[in-house]
Amino acid sequence: MKTVDSHCQTFQNALDILGKPWCALILNSLQGGPYRFTEIRERTQGPGDKILSARLKVLEERGLVVRRVEPGPPVRVTYELTESGRSFNDVAQAIERWGRGLKRPAPRPRKPLRKQGKRS
Amino acid sequence: MKTVDSHCQTFQNALDILGKPWCALILNSLQGGPYRFTEIRERTQGPGDKILSARLKVLEERGLVVRRVEPGPPVRVTYELTESGRSFNDVAQAIERWGRGLKRPAPRPRKPLRKQGKRS
Repeated sequence: MKTVDSHCQTFQNALDILGKPWCALILNSLQGGPYRFTEIRERTQGPGDKILSARLKVLEERGLVVRRVEPGPPVRVTYELTESGRSFNDVAQAIERWGRGLKRPAPRPRKPLRKQGKRS
Repeated sequence: MKTVDSHCQTFQNALDILGKPWCALILNSLQGGPYRFTEIRERTQGPGDKILSARLKVLEERGLVVRRVEPGPPVRVTYELTESGRSFNDVAQAIERWGRGLKRPAPRPRKPLRKQGKRS
């Protein structure tokens, strides 16, 4: 996108993560960690186990989260933000500031209720 | 999401826009405007007319873009960022800074090529 922004690819790369449902919320909820899976689930209060697990994997692959396995028994698995993951906080703050100035989405027009036929 | 962030709704509101394909790019491309539809199309170099038109409408509804019709002939329609739209620039810069520290997404594993049967 040379006419717009030579950094477009970097930007798009970041948006690929932000655009995935729950990713931003999970990053936010990991601030102050490390946390265990069950703790993250409680802090995010939204995604099911399967989605949460998949998102944590993506965040790990993108260098935002470190997964650590401490040998047991019992084995203890924790997730912690990397430096890059912690710096998401700056993005979150910028988005939140900007979000305050946004108008709410317009409500979708409702379809008129279907008229009930007269009973004979 | 009381355990994570009381501003979660504001944040989600903003992400609803950022998560839509092309929205961020269109906002970026409108910096320095007003521009006409054909100019925006050229600057974004991506979305088709239908998508571009729909996204501009969403951005207008959310108070980020103003659409102006100047009477003609010929009638001239332009799109310009509002103050809220211009302030997206801060978000874009924060995202871009953060994006630089991200690892690239892992390539998807390719399926092994199907072996060709031996010719007899």
